[in-house]
Amino acid sequence: MNFFSSNFKLGILGGGQLGKMLLNDTRKFDIYTCVLDASNEAPCKIASNEFHLGDLMDFEAVYNFGKQVDVLTIEIENVNVDALEALEKEGKKVYPSSQTLKRIQNKATQKLFYLDHNLPTAAFSRFAYLSEIEDAVNNGGLAFPFVWKAAQFGYDGNGVKVVRKLSDLEGLPTGECIAENLVPFKNELAVIVARNASGEIKTFPVVEMEFHPEANQVEYVICPARIPEAVAKKAVEVALNTSKAFNHVGLLAVEMFQTQNDEILINEVAPRPHNSGHQTIEASFTSQFEQHLRAILNLPLGRTDSKVGGVMVNLVGAEGFSGNVVYENIESIMNLDGVTPHIYGKKQTRPFRKMGHVTIVNEDLNEARRIAEEVKKTIKVISE
Amino acid sequence: MNFFSSNFKLGILGGGQLGKMLLNDTRKFDIYTCVLDASNEAPCKIASNEFHLGDLMDFEAVYNFGKQVDVLTIEIENVNVDALEALEKEGKKVYPSSQTLKRIQNKATQKLFYLDHNLPTAAFSRFAYLSEIEDAVNNGGLAFPFVWKAAQFGYDGNGVKVVRKLSDLEGLPTGECIAENLVPFKNELAVIVARNASGEIKTFPVVEMEFHPEANQVEYVICPARIPEAVAKKAVEVALNTSKAFNHVGLLAVEMFQTQNDEILINEVAPRPHNSGHQTIEASFTSQFEQHLRAILNLPLGRTDSKVGGVMVNLVGAEGFSGNVVYENIESIMNLDGVTPHIYGKKQTRPFRKMGHVTIVNEDLNEARRIAEEVKKTIKVISE
Repeated sequence: MNFFSSNFKLGILGGGQLGKMLLNDTRKFDIYTCVLDASNEAPCKIASNEFHLGDLMDFEAVYNFGKQVDVLTIEIENVNVDALEALEKEGKKVYPSSQTLKRIQNKATQKLFYLDHNLPTAAFSRFAYLSEIEDAVNNGGLAFPFVWKAAQFGYDGNGVKVVRKLSDLEGLPTGECIAENLVPFKNELAVIVARNASGEIKTFPVVEMEFHPEANQVEYVICPARIPEAVAKKAVEVALNTSKAFNHVGLLAVEMFQTQNDEILINEVAPRPHNSGHQTIEASFTSQFEQHLRAILNLPLGRTDSKVGGVMVNLVGAEGFSGNVVYENIESIMNLDGVTPHIYGKKQTRPFRKMGHVTIVNEDLNEARRIAEEVKKTIKVISE
Repeated sequence: MNFFSSNFKLGILGGGQLGKMLLNDTRKFDIYTCVLDASNEAPCKIASNEFHLGDLMDFEAVYNFGKQVDVLTIEIENVNVDALEALEKEGKKVYPSSQTLKRIQNKATQKLFYLDHNLPTAAFSRFAYLSEIEDAVNNGGLAFPFVWKAAQFGYDGNGVKVVRKLSDLEGLPTGECIAENLVPFKNELAVIVARNASGEIKTFPVVEMEFHPEANQVEYVICPARIPEAVAKKAVEVALNTSKAFNHVGLLAVEMFQTQNDEILINEVAPRPHNSGHQTIEASFTSQFEQHLRAILNLPLGRTDSKVGGVMVNLVGAEGFSGNVVYENIESIMNLDGVTPHIYGKKQTRPFRKMGHVTIVNEDLNEARRIAEEVKKTIKVISE
């Protein structure tokens, strides 16, 4: 199969910002792309060769779309997995596979998968309904504090809440969920593992994620993580073991906790380009998006080490603003050293919506982190 | 004017590979783009917001296109300058300006401009017709060897020929031309100068260009040039003086000769992203394309120093092959360290046509140069 000539078609399920950044690299390689998304305003509408409108959770939409392409990938996990399975049975290349997605889509299933494979993760209990959590607390089977996680359809910090008292459960979705031990961690870390269909494997450096305390969204990603080498080594080992267990093709972003005792516990994984890898565009020899492409097209993987230190700042909608987006002071941050804004092209902002990110690169990581804080203080995503 | 919101439109004259790479950065900033090109198969057809079909040399086509945008730029010099002038008179922002383009489009005018501004360049004579060269040779006014250059419409090494005997003139275009002293040079160098509308100026590092002896096309661009610091300093000084004389907005790529006596002579300039700056995508803190955007939108200019050493290899159609393009052994070169192919998306190859380029980055520039040679030997642009 020659990806670099016509006739070959790559299908992407989802047309959001991850797809948009992936299209940058399909364009670089001149790979023909088809994108399926439910929104006519999806960021991927431009720069894909074909844009198809359709619901990613709909069997027919995904199946019919998949029939038209040679290799199918995703930029979001919430897609119709049965359709992927049907396509695989007909010999279609689907990366990540329906099996990988099934193991990941439901967080309870994902956690059980870690237990089954002796992969370290925080202790948890599984509940069919939110009301069962209340019962468990009342009969002493569950103690505060714990982390409630919706089993399905969480995204960008939605679907996760620290619960310290019964009233914290109010207003949460009533369906399947887990209650996880609240891990008192030193750091949240992540490692992106790339694996191509031939089994070649490479890992990006361990990154450190600083989270916004309320929105539960990543505020800064720092590459490489400022942790002892022994801890970094352990984190890479856990990530590689996780990758091995999933036997995925493409990227696998493994989010982990570094506990107070320097243990590594898996938090969750994503089988695709990930927020914790955006700084690779500017900081690494190979960006995570190019690497995902190389992996799913079974090309040799690229170098994963860094050219310079990188820090990523998420641009999320400011609280109190909804409507047509304005990036206040974006020109000021472009005056700072090594700053590149990435604007995702969403027309409407709302509080905590991911609207873009800013990468800061510098030979000196601490200087990059300092500038990142200046960026964060200066730019505001507001509405007209 | 807010470039990062809707309503603002950037117009680009020309839809080739330079425009395609520029669109990567307009997409990154989510800037709305309109592209005018005569070919329905132009690489910019994808990834622009609006693609308009039209002849770039046609007054009406360029004028009517320009009326619809807020800022107008080019990715090729051969456009209708009268239309640009008319647009400027109506207050439209055109970068580079019609004046800059007028001074550059005609190589005889360009050379006279250097003389008028005391900018160093090789001695030359101007001829209205090719036949006048023959007369000059016959009456002793011109001695072999010299370099014939068409005054207009040269591109990619077309329009330039070393003339060692009268028969070398056979078959050349008969129109306006110059005969330039053949400079015995040590190196061909280039410096890209960026200048925004407020007058902020930055220069990229001096690069070294190794040319293909026959096709007169750049084979390797090496960044930074492996030359003494004093020579580099002189080259930057000449480039800055050239930039000052043109008073351009946007990029100005200044190609120069380093003579045997380490003098710097201007060869020619291009007021746009340039082949000598492609390695900036991977090697520099700011790519030349992002820098051009920053300049023409009057944003602060980005850092121009390098993260790592960079070498660029042009991918041109192999001799003896014409038709649907095939990139032979592209997968093999992707197995080499720090190698990124850029495929421009032209369907048809022909001998020496620019079909793409490959960037090789490495902490060690000599290692990058070594790998570049391996790339050059391995990949072949052929036809089906």
